[in-house]
Amino acid sequence: MKISILCIGNELLSGKTLNTNASWISRKLSDIGCDILEHLVVPDKKETIITGLEHLTIKNPGCVIITGGLGPTDDDITRPTIFEYVGTDSRFDEDYWTLLSEKFQKLGMSIPASNRNQALVPINGEVIENPGGSARGLKFLLNGEEMLFVLPGVPSEMKDMMNASVIPWIKENVKTSTSTRTLRTTGIPESALIEEIVEPISSNHGCNIGYYPSLYGVDIRISSGFQDKVNELSNKLYNILGHKIYCEGEYDIENVVVKNAIDKDKTIALAESCTGGLIGDRITDTGGSSKVFKGSMVVYSNKAKIDLLGVNKNTLDSFGAVSEEVAKEMANKVRKTFLTDYGLSVTGVAGPGGGTENKPVGLVYIGLSDENKTEVRRFNFSSDRKKNKLKTSQVALDWLRLTLINE
Amino acid sequence: MKISILCIGNELLSGKTLNTNASWISRKLSDIGCDILEHLVVPDKKETIITGLEHLTIKNPGCVIITGGLGPTDDDITRPTIFEYVGTDSRFDEDYWTLLSEKFQKLGMSIPASNRNQALVPINGEVIENPGGSARGLKFLLNGEEMLFVLPGVPSEMKDMMNASVIPWIKENVKTSTSTRTLRTTGIPESALIEEIVEPISSNHGCNIGYYPSLYGVDIRISSGFQDKVNELSNKLYNILGHKIYCEGEYDIENVVVKNAIDKDKTIALAESCTGGLIGDRITDTGGSSKVFKGSMVVYSNKAKIDLLGVNKNTLDSFGAVSEEVAKEMANKVRKTFLTDYGLSVTGVAGPGGGTENKPVGLVYIGLSDENKTEVRRFNFSSDRKKNKLKTSQVALDWLRLTLINE
Repeated sequence: MKISILCIGNELLSGKTLNTNASWISRKLSDIGCDILEHLVVPDKKETIITGLEHLTIKNPGCVIITGGLGPTDDDITRPTIFEYVGTDSRFDEDYWTLLSEKFQKLGMSIPASNRNQALVPINGEVIENPGGSARGLKFLLNGEEMLFVLPGVPSEMKDMMNASVIPWIKENVKTSTSTRTLRTTGIPESALIEEIVEPISSNHGCNIGYYPSLYGVDIRISSGFQDKVNELSNKLYNILGHKIYCEGEYDIENVVVKNAIDKDKTIALAESCTGGLIGDRITDTGGSSKVFKGSMVVYSNKAKIDLLGVNKNTLDSFGAVSEEVAKEMANKVRKTFLTDYGLSVTGVAGPGGGTENKPVGLVYIGLSDENKTEVRRFNFSSDRKKNKLKTSQVALDWLRLTLINE
Repeated sequence: MKISILCIGNELLSGKTLNTNASWISRKLSDIGCDILEHLVVPDKKETIITGLEHLTIKNPGCVIITGGLGPTDDDITRPTIFEYVGTDSRFDEDYWTLLSEKFQKLGMSIPASNRNQALVPINGEVIENPGGSARGLKFLLNGEEMLFVLPGVPSEMKDMMNASVIPWIKENVKTSTSTRTLRTTGIPESALIEEIVEPISSNHGCNIGYYPSLYGVDIRISSGFQDKVNELSNKLYNILGHKIYCEGEYDIENVVVKNAIDKDKTIALAESCTGGLIGDRITDTGGSSKVFKGSMVVYSNKAKIDLLGVNKNTLDSFGAVSEEVAKEMANKVRKTFLTDYGLSVTGVAGPGGGTENKPVGLVYIGLSDENKTEVRRFNFSSDRKKNKLKTSQVALDWLRLTLINE
């Protein structure tokens, strides 16, 4: 099915907000075999929204998806504009208004009058429920053939509504389908990855392949009109890359770590310094992580490392906080403190300050301790503060993942 | 000056590549007072590029910026398409071809014939040098008034050429400039915010106002051709909203917390349960945070709350881990453990599991302790796991911010 996307919002045009909505919708719909014709971004202005829709519909897409401008404020003019474009009257939905008012009451507030426009529903059109917010979506059949969906611009709400309402409709109405698998790898740079898999990817496999490097690793996206071709090539890549592929699709490495730990009945504790709590944050993004994750000691000062974690003062004085020896003690001590199977530690120079010639910004030691041994690995990420933290967390979680596999 | 942006490339429409070019160009040009009319993304197809340009030029922008499709491969058809659209012949630039060939030779390769199209230059138009790559840009005057710039899609090359060639031209030709301020608020929903500031925003202030809600709060962006009008309206909003505005521009609340703590010479420790380390992660995203942040006890089990933090077992047994009493003890104990001025605690039901009728998913208690007292506040975010964590961290950091202001 041919799809066009219209994003409405001054924040996109001022460059204040990156248009992740158009990209996310395109990826999701490309995965199920849709052809995305165009993205258009226009301001919250009635005439520009209408000329934009006119431009997009000239190409006869099977579906137009609009995002943004459904909020309660004056600059949110998508709803009345679309009612006018479609040529429908609207009515005030008293039931929804009562529901919204009660939501506000629960938060201890009275509902502002400006929210009233969110209770307007079209006579010739449908409403799409929004479990995550007050701006419900809209659905219209244009000229008896094109479907027009209108969704809020808040990414989480838009995604939920796409998944619950728009994608099921498209799947039902799409005529050709594409199969896709995304193999997620970490710990190997893109160019080295391609060298390893050059043989299968140069063969006559009949698939499209895309490589998407990020701070987390490189994702390999394989798609084709034939599921068995996608599977055949995926299997060949698995045979070469093995556990360098940590999972498929939209799962993250922390989900894999938690799942593996639950499967193997192993518990985890962390001693974090330069990551400040990020590794614990990532692990606890996974539902059910409390079964295996017992806690983290974020020891951001030497004093805390000594007093709370029990790192030897002499070790700190002799080798410094960012050292193999301190990482080793941290991993070992935190495992014993929380009485877990594994203790994982990180200590490093996140930057931008604090770097020296011997210990530059980006230098990180990661320790992993179990009842038999404690190992330490050294990394130099030489990036900025946030990226150093993120890369450290990814490498640490990957080490834990690989260790759990071998349990 | 009014600007329209046309991005050409299948990778943008499949969602493989996020359109950071449109966003970057928009931000740079908004900052120097340009008004960005529209972004349009089209595939590498001649007729779609031409209808796209026709659509964008209807609005009479002073300048159209095109990115993408200037590479050497078959699917890079921007150059001949634009020559046709502008109505210019081209000639083969022998000097540039020699230069390119030498570049390839230096890399130990012979230049592919497909690169020849990169040496084509327009008769009625100019070439923009590309110090970072082989795809030079193009510049045309349309109808004697609109300027058309064509740049490569590789972000680093595009940015260098924007900075060296396009932005200087726009600055010279821009007739009006725009001033902008973004006031960031938190803790008040968009509709309630508007009600509070209805008087100044309904007055004849001569500014454009945009509202940008997110999980962090609502940003208010005020812009006008006159700096003093922006300042006047901003001051009125400050008079009403006061400390509900936590900062301006691109700073985050954690930056403000760290700055205030440094200014007031106060130290902070955290006891995190449901946030799993997120609050510490956010605080330590700020450079220099080690001056005031001493650490966090991420106590994800009852046992850890008792053994490591010293929460009373009876309190846990009587009231449960998610309770006012436990939040109070956590805040108080962690302050004493780390010997800091403040102890901040969070305990809650992040979800999706673990909710009960009395303690539903999203219920969170936040505690804040100093040497004089320990207070606890109760929230119900009733959202999904990640959002509950994020909202909790935002409310907790905001409480800390407001407390530090009053120090």
